[in-house]
Amino acid sequence: MTPEEMLEVAVAEARKGLAEGGIPIGAALFSADGTLLGSGHNKRVQDDDPSVHGETDAFRNAGRQRDYRSTIMVTTLSPCWYCSGLVRQFNIGAVVIGESRTFTGGHDWLAEHGVGITLLDDERCVTMMEEFITARPELWNEDIGVS
Amino acid sequence: MTPEEMLEVAVAEARKGLAEGGIPIGAALFSADGTLLGSGHNKRVQDDDPSVHGETDAFRNAGRQRDYRSTIMVTTLSPCWYCSGLVRQFNIGAVVIGESRTFTGGHDWLAEHGVGITLLDDERCVTMMEEFITARPELWNEDIGVS
Repeated sequence: MTPEEMLEVAVAEARKGLAEGGIPIGAALFSADGTLLGSGHNKRVQDDDPSVHGETDAFRNAGRQRDYRSTIMVTTLSPCWYCSGLVRQFNIGAVVIGESRTFTGGHDWLAEHGVGITLLDDERCVTMMEEFITARPELWNEDIGVS
Repeated sequence: MTPEEMLEVAVAEARKGLAEGGIPIGAALFSADGTLLGSGHNKRVQDDDPSVHGETDAFRNAGRQRDYRSTIMVTTLSPCWYCSGLVRQFNIGAVVIGESRTFTGGHDWLAEHGVGITLLDDERCVTMMEEFITARPELWNEDIGVS
């Protein structure tokens, strides 16, 4: 499975979140052989829960795994520090990122600590976030802890 | 409210988690004036959910806050990278830690980034974790991503 194919799952999750009135960030966790372990999207608005980012929702939905070293996290947006910390703590081996133009989190830090990073710079992801940030700046700032 | 008083809330949460058959780590988020915003504990076992650490549960239970800079996160154990990333992303101003003898996460990194760190080295917290790690090493390793 290519990074681009994995990104499709995350993009579909982000679009689902947008359709629900939420923040359009989606993610998915795959095993090394391309098996989808779990996918999810940001649910701050939908569940009124600030702890559910795209990556943490995908991680949750993948259930309890005993070893994450060969897994791949794909996300539509560069992972924030919260989600980067998740990747580092659980030794997730690789992260595929849709884009980091609208927001750059901790992916360089993850690369320094041995995580394989693939940055796709996907135009659809950029446009989706640009439109969302323009439409709902206060909600976006809330989600990344900007006062 | 003193750091020791705030820690009592986290210790009570950790003990609740232990009584439920879970991993004994508790946390709470306080406002600057000592108001309890939310508390929680690790629920990996109880909810079969790997995303619920003590700190993320307390953060969730505090609900959506617009500004975390003056809030204080208290936790029975040094925050792992996942929970340290949460603190950094949301600009939580201070972290009070029960102990870091049985596990050291990212609290030095948080201090470097301006987070106020108070390490209490509480004997009850140390004993609770030592007994748990001895009794359930596989569960503990699962919770911190050690294969």
